[in-house]
Amino acid sequence: MRRVSVIGGGHTRFMANSPNTGLELLAEASMDAIINSKISPQDIQAVYCGNVLGDFSEGQGMIQSYLANEIGCNYVPATKFEGACATGTIAVQNAAMWVASGTYDIVLVCGVEKATAMGTPLATRTFAMFSDSRFEYPAGFTFPAVFAMLAHLYASHYHIPLEKLKEQMAHVSVQSHHYGAKNPHAQFQKEITVEKVLGGPIVTTPLQLLDCCPFSDGAAAVILASEEVAKKLTDKPVYIAGSGQASSGHLASQYQYLPRIRAREIAVKQAYKMAGVGPEDIDVCELHDCFSIASIIAAESLGFAEFGTAGILWEKGETKIGGKTPINISGGLKAKGHPLGATGISQVYEITRQLRGELMDQGRQVEGAKVGLVDTLGGDGIIVNLVLKRD
Amino acid sequence: MRRVSVIGGGHTRFMANSPNTGLELLAEASMDAIINSKISPQDIQAVYCGNVLGDFSEGQGMIQSYLANEIGCNYVPATKFEGACATGTIAVQNAAMWVASGTYDIVLVCGVEKATAMGTPLATRTFAMFSDSRFEYPAGFTFPAVFAMLAHLYASHYHIPLEKLKEQMAHVSVQSHHYGAKNPHAQFQKEITVEKVLGGPIVTTPLQLLDCCPFSDGAAAVILASEEVAKKLTDKPVYIAGSGQASSGHLASQYQYLPRIRAREIAVKQAYKMAGVGPEDIDVCELHDCFSIASIIAAESLGFAEFGTAGILWEKGETKIGGKTPINISGGLKAKGHPLGATGISQVYEITRQLRGELMDQGRQVEGAKVGLVDTLGGDGIIVNLVLKRD
Repeated sequence: MRRVSVIGGGHTRFMANSPNTGLELLAEASMDAIINSKISPQDIQAVYCGNVLGDFSEGQGMIQSYLANEIGCNYVPATKFEGACATGTIAVQNAAMWVASGTYDIVLVCGVEKATAMGTPLATRTFAMFSDSRFEYPAGFTFPAVFAMLAHLYASHYHIPLEKLKEQMAHVSVQSHHYGAKNPHAQFQKEITVEKVLGGPIVTTPLQLLDCCPFSDGAAAVILASEEVAKKLTDKPVYIAGSGQASSGHLASQYQYLPRIRAREIAVKQAYKMAGVGPEDIDVCELHDCFSIASIIAAESLGFAEFGTAGILWEKGETKIGGKTPINISGGLKAKGHPLGATGISQVYEITRQLRGELMDQGRQVEGAKVGLVDTLGGDGIIVNLVLKRD
Repeated sequence: MRRVSVIGGGHTRFMANSPNTGLELLAEASMDAIINSKISPQDIQAVYCGNVLGDFSEGQGMIQSYLANEIGCNYVPATKFEGACATGTIAVQNAAMWVASGTYDIVLVCGVEKATAMGTPLATRTFAMFSDSRFEYPAGFTFPAVFAMLAHLYASHYHIPLEKLKEQMAHVSVQSHHYGAKNPHAQFQKEITVEKVLGGPIVTTPLQLLDCCPFSDGAAAVILASEEVAKKLTDKPVYIAGSGQASSGHLASQYQYLPRIRAREIAVKQAYKMAGVGPEDIDVCELHDCFSIASIIAAESLGFAEFGTAGILWEKGETKIGGKTPINISGGLKAKGHPLGATGISQVYEITRQLRGELMDQGRQVEGAKVGLVDTLGGDGIIVNLVLKRD
């Protein structure tokens, strides 16, 4: 199959209570991507879209065909994906297959969410629909509770005092806000301190408010192209070199693995193998930090630390620029924001910009980065990993 | 790319108010497909799922990973699509690409809907989310109104007296019920008459109750495999020989084409070209008859009749077994039912069984059928067409 390149991207600011509709946000990010890629809407042969809550939040399903029409990609095939928080990455993965197969040369992948439109108090209840409706949320087991449980399990499994783990978790959030403050697209552009995290209100013990990512509105888009087309349009093509996906069932079905997410270990192995790289080759990573504990758990399964030790990476600054493996230099879900359908595409957008060396003026460039990793978790069971590379 | 075969399928009965959950229906159809294909769940390398209203109807998003876990396809990649009523066909189309590319040899495609769970009075309002939330349903323009308008446009554009068109439309529904009565999976298994249709209550002038398909619960599934694997597992492989998709925006953006759906003419051309066939080669067709007028409009764009004349096909019985082009021998959406996420997969299931010659004992076999066409319309703008063939 052909090599597939990310030739450009677009991004709205992520925020709460955006005054724009989902379609407007999606069109803004998509047109941004089209212009940055030096193509026109008529060059787009197919649209792949990620959106989770459009029906709930705005009474708009099937947004993909209206987006295509809105930006002048008339009559193109338009496909939409829903895989909870991993939705956007799944859209990228599938779009890449259609280009790799030789069917299309240039496609648009875009994702959007209006996740604050139903009101923050209801958002946790709404998000819970992406856990198991039989056994989980009817028992009150919403996502803050899921990750609080994982934090307790992590602490006991690896014999880490809970107070120590909470401190490590606080370092995760502090770093995210540090880089978020430099990212003009981020929802939270301000620094915080370990003391502030630990002194914040409890959401679900041991998670405090600043351990949790926000609800967000926003959109992101990337243009994928065949290698041949990419080389004509850019002198900095970035390639999707590896791709992996795996799913688990509800958490009780994973009891013998928790707090490890088994699907992640399977998915990332596929992606590393396909790209011919290992964790030691990753120069920059965007991983799924919906809660601070989620970052620690993810970093271990991705191979960046021994199990039970990833908290030390953040504590020692090994996840910062200049550290062993820079992680979430965008601010991550925590500070950049988490508009579900856009999240994975935003991660791909960020890694692409890092590999192109475009973030110097924002003061958050990982200099010389050649290989990047994207990691997205959907609900309690879908993991998608992508390895991006520049030549 | 490799040829992709449908090697087996599964189907629940379509009905109103199913006592089963969406996940149970999906598991039933999927296990049925797995058993009929003489494989085991562990042979499935990836799951592709169609579901539209899972969050609305049951508070269950991301059903694909729970389904994979439920039937023992542990850790496989699980992808879900939403394209309104075309959801299932889009799932088949994308799954086929992953097999054609050589990535997977055996995949499961399954779709489900619990479309009656929110109560029939609310279902039309819920379905309207799959039209444009800016210009259409806020003005009261729900789908019965959309197709009523198309019927009026059709009558005036082709100078057909409305009473004449209503009679032709009645013949469409009568035929669907005729075959639905022979289909054990159909929601309505009883004959009706032209008089009964024309004497029924008005839904939206000129559409009467029996011009409209029902709301349905149900699931369908098919197993796709590479040609090499298919030939080992069945002596009756059916191939996905052609595939096309196109999208339109809201109806006002299509004003210069209506009552023709321009996206259909583009999509079916792609599918015919890829399969190397034309409308004259189609031995049996399942098309998207959400309303009786929709069948007439579709048959023309698919090339089965000159524009403005397709009503005569039904009037003269040319769409029955033995006629020029047998259409909706399953009972169609009208009599078989229309559980959105399952609909397109059910169409593929039906055409596969026709091409395999398996419907003799149900008294609705199109003898010697070799080439079949699937046509699905999503909302007011996505069309997917698939050409299926046996050697």
